[in-house]
Amino acid sequence: MSVRLSTPQDYSRLVDKYDTWMFDCDGVLWHGDRIIDGVVEVLDLLRSKKKKVLFVTNNATKSRKNYKGKFDKLGVQAHVDEIYGSAYATAVYLSSVIKLPKTNKVYVIGMAGLEEELQGEGITVLGGSDPADCTLEPFTLANFTLDPAVAAVVCGLDTQMNYTKISKAFQYLTRNSDCHFIATNEDSTYPSAEGLLPGAGSISAPLRYALGRDPICTGKPSSTMLDCINAKVHYNPERTIMVGDRLNTDILFGQNGGLATLLVLTGIAVESDITGPNASPIVPNFITSSIADFRAAIDPQQ
Amino acid sequence: MSVRLSTPQDYSRLVDKYDTWMFDCDGVLWHGDRIIDGVVEVLDLLRSKKKKVLFVTNNATKSRKNYKGKFDKLGVQAHVDEIYGSAYATAVYLSSVIKLPKTNKVYVIGMAGLEEELQGEGITVLGGSDPADCTLEPFTLANFTLDPAVAAVVCGLDTQMNYTKISKAFQYLTRNSDCHFIATNEDSTYPSAEGLLPGAGSISAPLRYALGRDPICTGKPSSTMLDCINAKVHYNPERTIMVGDRLNTDILFGQNGGLATLLVLTGIAVESDITGPNASPIVPNFITSSIADFRAAIDPQQ
Repeated sequence: MSVRLSTPQDYSRLVDKYDTWMFDCDGVLWHGDRIIDGVVEVLDLLRSKKKKVLFVTNNATKSRKNYKGKFDKLGVQAHVDEIYGSAYATAVYLSSVIKLPKTNKVYVIGMAGLEEELQGEGITVLGGSDPADCTLEPFTLANFTLDPAVAAVVCGLDTQMNYTKISKAFQYLTRNSDCHFIATNEDSTYPSAEGLLPGAGSISAPLRYALGRDPICTGKPSSTMLDCINAKVHYNPERTIMVGDRLNTDILFGQNGGLATLLVLTGIAVESDITGPNASPIVPNFITSSIADFRAAIDPQQ
Repeated sequence: MSVRLSTPQDYSRLVDKYDTWMFDCDGVLWHGDRIIDGVVEVLDLLRSKKKKVLFVTNNATKSRKNYKGKFDKLGVQAHVDEIYGSAYATAVYLSSVIKLPKTNKVYVIGMAGLEEELQGEGITVLGGSDPADCTLEPFTLANFTLDPAVAAVVCGLDTQMNYTKISKAFQYLTRNSDCHFIATNEDSTYPSAEGLLPGAGSISAPLRYALGRDPICTGKPSSTMLDCINAKVHYNPERTIMVGDRLNTDILFGQNGGLATLLVLTGIAVESDITGPNASPIVPNFITSSIADFRAAIDPQQ
């Protein structure tokens, strides 16, 4: 059973109760390039009360450094080391969990931010933003040389996805033995400023279908993302809350980590996902319509 | 229990037993642009014995007319009215089963052959080979105008698939009420001359994933394909055999139509699909390694 926040006291009590606030970004802080009204004041409120603020995003199109630029552009205060992205989680998974030898390579269906995080962990990447693979020219195996050093295929959101990349990734996954199949995240859609668009899960879907198997996912709700945070940040799970707009990623991620969870309705989840006959089995601790509602906790005397 | 053909008598008896021979093409007659040795002689044998020969293909990249060109190029005798493709089956499904009003339009993720067959049934198409949609430029909904006349999205194999086409199709399927979601076929892979590549089912996979629902499929093993043949060709199902390389499309298609079925091992299906612990539940009546084996039925005296 979720608690619906409504009175100024509800919001103040929640601010007092939790020391670490983890936020999803798209659909929570902004829609595409449009910030949600009130977000800056609420984040300022938390910082003024010495709360630890972290940004935990499945957006794998940007590196943490790139993502910091987005915060700057939208006028939201953030430090690079407060930002945890699924591109970074994927890089850490490959370097620290799988412990991919440095002589191996990774074939990427994804964008520059993903490549940057992988390279930051010392990983050699193929595909991705390489102009040779960003093409709609016909693909033929006659012109393709399998690189035996490719030991993993990583898929993130890629607005330059195409048949050449999918075909090359398919070759590596079927012909290089034990080649890892990894997706930054499974989000089926993502909320752009003007509406929903297919998400990163849709980019790995052709390979899932052609191979008949699912990738390992490193973003929320996977514990890999939490492992990355745990390695860098000290926090008390009992005094930490995860805020998100998506039940099967954000809220489940918080629950998997033993955190409190707050669902906002500015993104993917809608009323019928949390009440009525088709409600999700994933139940957040708290619900409010928007992060902006926390403005009610700002003391006008201060 | 399947019968393995091996002796010259086995092949001669089968030729005598069936009057109508339906052939899958890729993986049965050829691999990509390379004909399988012996195919021409075997088809000549069947024609010399006054057998009816039909070509039933899930390849939706070509119209029947285009496909005739492929037969010509490879030196295989065929008439356009002997060729049944999933692009044609899709067009007939839209015009005759759904009875799409002529004022409606169809958004296509697919190639020129699919557009040609749809247009041949009087359907107005968007997307497909339109250069405006064959792009890797970023897609944004800000520059997109939803056409309310689009009443169906059709996906076939499209080597120019991209994020713009998938995003536009996603808009039509989520925002135009009752928009039909149709795939020419569900083949996960297809056998090119140099090896397997992702098939048409992989092209519709991003939309399946983003929408959380499956398309209607019109190619083999769907009965839509058989309805198209039934509307044009008279044959006795008891004296008809379907020859294919894929259990879950070709052989199932034959079984659904009450035809005898012959599996060849020159394409997708391999020995472990038909024997042993992981054998498919779809069991063909007959098995032979290649169509070329039927050369054993050619009487050297003739």
